[in-house]
Amino acid sequence: MLFSRALIPTVKEAPADAANVSHTLLVRGGYIRKVGAGMYDFLPLGLRVLKKVEAVVREEMDRAGAQEILMPALLPAEYFKETGRWDLYGDTLFRLKDRKGGEFHLGPTHEEIVTDIARREIRSFRDMPKNVYQIQTKFRDEPRPRGGLLRGREFLMKDAYSFDVSEEAARGSYEIMRKAYCRVFDRLGLVYRMVAADPGAIGGSTSAEFQVLADSGEDAIVACGTCDYAANVEIATVKAPGETESNAAAEEMKDVHTPKIGGIDDVAAFLKMPKDRFLKSLLYVAGKSIVMAIVRGDHDVNEIRLARALGVDEVFLAADADVEKATGAAVGFAGPVGFKGKVVVDRAAAMVKNAVTGANRTDHHVIGVNRGRDWDGELHDIRLATTGDACPNCSSGTLRSYRGIEGGHIFILGTRYSTQMGATFADEKQEKHPIVMGCYGIGISRLVASAIEQHHDADGIRWPMSIAPYHVHLITIGKDENVISTAKKLYDDLRAECIDVLWDDRDERPGVKFKDADLLGIPLRVTIGAKALASGHIELKPRTETDPKKAELLPVADAARILTERVKSATR
Amino acid sequence: MLFSRALIPTVKEAPADAANVSHTLLVRGGYIRKVGAGMYDFLPLGLRVLKKVEAVVREEMDRAGAQEILMPALLPAEYFKETGRWDLYGDTLFRLKDRKGGEFHLGPTHEEIVTDIARREIRSFRDMPKNVYQIQTKFRDEPRPRGGLLRGREFLMKDAYSFDVSEEAARGSYEIMRKAYCRVFDRLGLVYRMVAADPGAIGGSTSAEFQVLADSGEDAIVACGTCDYAANVEIATVKAPGETESNAAAEEMKDVHTPKIGGIDDVAAFLKMPKDRFLKSLLYVAGKSIVMAIVRGDHDVNEIRLARALGVDEVFLAADADVEKATGAAVGFAGPVGFKGKVVVDRAAAMVKNAVTGANRTDHHVIGVNRGRDWDGELHDIRLATTGDACPNCSSGTLRSYRGIEGGHIFILGTRYSTQMGATFADEKQEKHPIVMGCYGIGISRLVASAIEQHHDADGIRWPMSIAPYHVHLITIGKDENVISTAKKLYDDLRAECIDVLWDDRDERPGVKFKDADLLGIPLRVTIGAKALASGHIELKPRTETDPKKAELLPVADAARILTERVKSATR
Repeated sequence: MLFSRALIPTVKEAPADAANVSHTLLVRGGYIRKVGAGMYDFLPLGLRVLKKVEAVVREEMDRAGAQEILMPALLPAEYFKETGRWDLYGDTLFRLKDRKGGEFHLGPTHEEIVTDIARREIRSFRDMPKNVYQIQTKFRDEPRPRGGLLRGREFLMKDAYSFDVSEEAARGSYEIMRKAYCRVFDRLGLVYRMVAADPGAIGGSTSAEFQVLADSGEDAIVACGTCDYAANVEIATVKAPGETESNAAAEEMKDVHTPKIGGIDDVAAFLKMPKDRFLKSLLYVAGKSIVMAIVRGDHDVNEIRLARALGVDEVFLAADADVEKATGAAVGFAGPVGFKGKVVVDRAAAMVKNAVTGANRTDHHVIGVNRGRDWDGELHDIRLATTGDACPNCSSGTLRSYRGIEGGHIFILGTRYSTQMGATFADEKQEKHPIVMGCYGIGISRLVASAIEQHHDADGIRWPMSIAPYHVHLITIGKDENVISTAKKLYDDLRAECIDVLWDDRDERPGVKFKDADLLGIPLRVTIGAKALASGHIELKPRTETDPKKAELLPVADAARILTERVKSATR
Repeated sequence: MLFSRALIPTVKEAPADAANVSHTLLVRGGYIRKVGAGMYDFLPLGLRVLKKVEAVVREEMDRAGAQEILMPALLPAEYFKETGRWDLYGDTLFRLKDRKGGEFHLGPTHEEIVTDIARREIRSFRDMPKNVYQIQTKFRDEPRPRGGLLRGREFLMKDAYSFDVSEEAARGSYEIMRKAYCRVFDRLGLVYRMVAADPGAIGGSTSAEFQVLADSGEDAIVACGTCDYAANVEIATVKAPGETESNAAAEEMKDVHTPKIGGIDDVAAFLKMPKDRFLKSLLYVAGKSIVMAIVRGDHDVNEIRLARALGVDEVFLAADADVEKATGAAVGFAGPVGFKGKVVVDRAAAMVKNAVTGANRTDHHVIGVNRGRDWDGELHDIRLATTGDACPNCSSGTLRSYRGIEGGHIFILGTRYSTQMGATFADEKQEKHPIVMGCYGIGISRLVASAIEQHHDADGIRWPMSIAPYHVHLITIGKDENVISTAKKLYDDLRAECIDVLWDDRDERPGVKFKDADLLGIPLRVTIGAKALASGHIELKPRTETDPKKAELLPVADAARILTERVKSATR
């Protein structure tokens, strides 16, 4: 493609609503344009990346024996009503009526529709295993669509569904998908962890998330440095690194004045005490009561575990007014000493001797606090796993915390949908059983943004070769006849080898061209200028190489071969 | 693909709501399944055909220099409100609100959205010509969705948009698209005519439809047998084949009793008179009056021309009660003799001497009717062109009538959208002008159905090679070891040559396999059985060959090569 003819409208300014780097770079590089909140145009470069991700996913699904189908995006309400999700989905479902008043919605996912196919077309144990998938536009009315492609209201997804005769056979299908997902994420050039996940509302019994590691990720995960263990912090098993209560003698409890200093970081600095000596005291609404949760100052509360410990579905942080009412102090000065309500304490916090905590008096903390003598509470594991914790899986490893972006999710659904919708099969004895299902999603458009979150620098994107819009970014300097004819030949030779080349043939200064090249992030930048050409060379600089002196000089005669080899070895 | 593992649920029964052959065969062949009115699942075979059509369209768009983009399907109302189409589209637009009450709709077409891209990204005459296209799911709340894929409420479309500096330049872009469309329709193996069309509501000045010829088509067109002229009958210029008034002497007008015989065909048979001696008399509502339109008995009224002749926007056939009130007779016995209201007569009908027509008395006609003496009316061209008419374009040809399915449509839009939405460019003198646009659609999913409407027989589909789900349908008879190993080798050899093969390896009787093969319509059926194999042969029968004796015997050793050549020569 010639840059001069292409629609690649690069801009200098980040979009006003940009909340993350992929949004900024996708807009600045002319990859996408906003149409509405969570709705984007894919311009030619953006669509090329999307299609490359899609192609890798399709190849691996086909290789794994899944068959591609396509279900509608606009769906009659009857299917979601059959399983109760018409109500369960609430405001996230885009609902509409047709000209006759019939109820419809846009598909946020397709378990019901695929189960309807299964109940009509799968009748015998002989018809299984089956796995069908689609690559299709999905719609969810997200409460807070994030800028760019990370969390849109319209997005491209691959969703696969497996059908088996038994839970055991379903595990086989799940395992095939798990391996296919690893190949997909490997081929996309993403650093990821497969983590145990909370199956959430979709209703499964075995599930894993494919988390693309990126500092900007919404999800907090922990992973072992030694074994394969990785989990969303919310469900990671907490195993403290051989903690034991210290033998230090109990000090006297004392009040300290901490004027306007309420946050743990600030109090720790003010008192010159480590954070792990603090009792972090948070007030939660659990059903109709207010409960105080205590974790160590360097830990965070796992709200899912806290709710489970309290026997309620969910807990919410209490509002400031409720905190003040319950403790008699401003927010930031709560503590268990003298607190009248129920206290739940995490196992690690329970072991802290001579602790520091809020005094339930505004601008005051207490030090030398000891459990048993000064306060007590119900003991539970209620903290989030974190860096430094022992791995709950292997004997030797310790966990590290990461931020991740959920790029894929695999589930064994079991028989929830097949039972509700009457999708059964006859076994060898003609007895009927519900089909055992699995479902497997990949956020295709989200992966485009995730790749950028993971691969960028201050100047722009650094695409992995397999999903770059073009492999080679060819820049010509000036209009010297020899420069242009050399470029033309290289352009044609590379294209004959199926190498995707963007040739910046614009009448622009070299600085403008180099800046755009850095922004667009195409992996191999090739520059042809009269000076190097005089000695028979052209210049190659991989986008991953930031040292300007590290450009390589390639002999003109070998350039096409060398570049082709580089691309092929990186996409093999 | 092995048939035993594939999801190809063929059925014997046509769907209850099947209105046309493509709907029946797509469902019977397991290509599609209904989810709601005008909404279908594409099962694996159906999706394969859809993707093949899509691939041909994409290749030809790319070859023509258009750049692929992807706009959202879910759109904020503001864009259609800007051009007034939010109101104009009426019930056909699927409208919805998001959780905050914001107004949205599903895109039925994307002129506004692409014009929004143009007004932001195209600024100078140097940025043009540009042509962008997308292949995307569209939504229209059709009043009467037709069964199957001919007229869905959700459907796949390719829509391209060109941007130029002038009307003349736009004609150049239009011409490039016209040629690309011819290549697309040729490559898809469809018999079609490019016809002059009524630009309708989309607001263009030059347009043409690509009509796929099929008896079941919704559109009536006429085409010249000699030159390239073709047009929708509604806008075809009528040029009668050198008609002159006959010299026959005027007969006496007589009443004839035609008890309960009102339709022209029946009266003509009863009176043993040719239809072209009849005056067909139809009553129309035009504004607030009832008008009688007279055309020759073998002609039909062109309602668009009638409305134009009467100076109104539209005319409607009068209700039965109004006909009876206006003529004093039951429907079927209307005629101009003695009619009190306004009469408009077509030029051809005006020349009929000694005509037959209704007597405005139930169960009575009059014969020997002559214009001037017995009745009169305003002379206009108000009939539809038909078979036998002279071609209005060339001097020698005559027209023939066809039914067609609109598979594509190309327009020059002019500056309607760019003016309304402020999409301007600066010329060499920095003066601003509105961009001149064109738009170009192809109904991808409709073409799948159209191909079947044109290519089928009593037993099933007969796919053109270029869009067949598989090229070769391999059938093995029995489980003889030699049969299976020969099939396995042929299957592998063909796939190595990128030939798509469906191998019917099911444990079914040969009759079942052959019936399914006819139904599915894959172009080359190859049968491997022990008997022919004993003499070193396998059997090839193209789906287009209906004579069962005409199967060819191919030597096993040459089969892969011969089949590969057949496929490649048919898709070149």
